[in-house]
Amino acid sequence: MRIALYQGTPQPLDVPGNLQRLRHRAHLAAEQGAQLLVCPEMFLSGYNIGLAHVERLAEAEDGPSAMEVVEIAQAHRIAIVYGYPERGEDGAIYNSVQLIDAHGRSLCNYRKTHLFGELDRSMFSAGADHFPVVEFEGWKVGLLICYDIEFPENARRLALNGAELILVPTANMAPYDFVCQVTVRSRAQENQCYLVYANYCGAEGEIQYCGQSSIIGPDGGVLAMAEREECQLQAELKRETLMKGREAFPYLKDLRQELHLRRS
Amino acid sequence: MRIALYQGTPQPLDVPGNLQRLRHRAHLAAEQGAQLLVCPEMFLSGYNIGLAHVERLAEAEDGPSAMEVVEIAQAHRIAIVYGYPERGEDGAIYNSVQLIDAHGRSLCNYRKTHLFGELDRSMFSAGADHFPVVEFEGWKVGLLICYDIEFPENARRLALNGAELILVPTANMAPYDFVCQVTVRSRAQENQCYLVYANYCGAEGEIQYCGQSSIIGPDGGVLAMAEREECQLQAELKRETLMKGREAFPYLKDLRQELHLRRS
Repeated sequence: MRIALYQGTPQPLDVPGNLQRLRHRAHLAAEQGAQLLVCPEMFLSGYNIGLAHVERLAEAEDGPSAMEVVEIAQAHRIAIVYGYPERGEDGAIYNSVQLIDAHGRSLCNYRKTHLFGELDRSMFSAGADHFPVVEFEGWKVGLLICYDIEFPENARRLALNGAELILVPTANMAPYDFVCQVTVRSRAQENQCYLVYANYCGAEGEIQYCGQSSIIGPDGGVLAMAEREECQLQAELKRETLMKGREAFPYLKDLRQELHLRRS
Repeated sequence: MRIALYQGTPQPLDVPGNLQRLRHRAHLAAEQGAQLLVCPEMFLSGYNIGLAHVERLAEAEDGPSAMEVVEIAQAHRIAIVYGYPERGEDGAIYNSVQLIDAHGRSLCNYRKTHLFGELDRSMFSAGADHFPVVEFEGWKVGLLICYDIEFPENARRLALNGAELILVPTANMAPYDFVCQVTVRSRAQENQCYLVYANYCGAEGEIQYCGQSSIIGPDGGVLAMAEREECQLQAELKRETLMKGREAFPYLKDLRQELHLRRS
C-alpha cells in the first residue's frame, strides 16, 4: 500500500480554501499512486483559532465539509484522513480526525483523548474511551492525534487491538521537536507498527510549527521525513516487512499484560 | 547527584575476577566524585553462560558475592548497582540486579520480569509483579533490566510509583542498536525521568554486544554516551532540571490512566 502525507502551513478559518487545497493534494497524491493521503490536525479550520471560531466552524462528522471530503475522495479515488473541529451529538466540541475511503465511506472517526495544555482545553472536550481499529485495504488501521502519541499507552492500546498502521495528524510546535525525531520512531518500533505523523510547518499566530512529518517503519526506521517546509511525502508499506518485524521483535507477544492491567 | 556507569567486555564465569574489576571501577568512580556506579546485567558471572553455569553460580541476594559487593561499597563509600544470577528463596533462578548503598545496605533487589528470547528463558524464571521504587540520596530510584526497558509499561509503572531515576543494567547486542539510540531516550522523556543504561561491549560467545551505554536526561537529551569500547561515563543529575522538565512536559499528570487500566 502506498501512503502520502501532506505537510503544509495552516490556513486558519478558511474552510473553503482548505477544502480546495485538500482537493489539489488528493489529486497529486492519487496521480503518484497513493491509496491514502494523511493531512494535519484540524486541517479544515486551522488549529490555533480560539473557542469562538471553533464554536462557529465545528461540524458533525457527516456535516457539509465532511460531504465535500467524501466527494473529493470519490473524485480522485483516494482515501483521506483529515482533522477538523467536530460538533458531537452531545453538543460538545471535539478535536477529531476522520478516515474517508476512496468510495466516500467514513471508516473511522476519532476524538483526541489526551488534550494538550490550555490551547486544547480552551476549545475542546476530551474524547471518551474509544480507540477504534478499522480495516482499510487489508491493513488494520488506528488513529491518534498529536499529543496522544506522546503517551505510549495510546499507541499500545491500538496495537493490542490489532493495529498495524497508526495515522497521527498533528500540530506539533517548537520546542517539541523531540517528538518528531525520537518519540514517533520509538512508538512505531515498540508496537511493530507503521506510523504516519502528518504535521504543519510555518506559523499560526504565536505558534511556530516544527514540520518534520514522517512515515516510519515497524523497525523504527525513517521511510520518509520532511524538513520544515511545505511538502508531500510518500512511502510504500509492505506486509512482509511488518510480518518479519513482528517475528524479530515479538514485543506484542512477550508483553506481560497481566502485570500492568491490575495496577492498584 | 553524580552517577557513574561502567561499560566493559564480559568476563564470563570469572566471579572473583569480576568482583576484582568491580572494586577497581568503584575506586575510580568514587575518586571522580560519583555517589553511584551502575554495571551491566549479570555482571558478576557473565550473561551468555548457559543453564549449567548459571545453576552453579547463582547465589542468594545476600550470598557471599553480595557480601563482597557490600564490602566494596563500604570501602569506597559509593553505592553500586550490579547484575547477577539470583537463587531465589523458592529455588528458582532469576536474572537480577541489586542496589547496595555506600553503607553496604541492600536498598533494592529486582528480578527481570520480561525475559528475552530463548537465551533468557533457557536460564531464568521471570520475576513476579514487583517493581520497587526506593529512596536513594534524596532521589526515588527504580530498576529494570535490558529487555524490560523496551516495553513502555515497565518504565511507566516505575514512574507512576514515583521514580525519578531509572537504572537499567543491560546486555544488549547487535542488531538491537535502535534501543540504545532511540528507545532509551523516548523512555526517559515520556516519563520525565533520568535514565542510566549500562551495557557491555565486545563479544561473549556468538554474541556481539553493541555498547552505546548512556545517561539520559528527563528531556530525552543525551548527557553521556559510550561508543563500542570499554569506558566509564559520568553525569551530574540535577533536581531542578527534573522539576522544570515535569512542569514543561506534564505527561504523568496528563495521562488519563482510567482509560488504560480497565482495558478488557
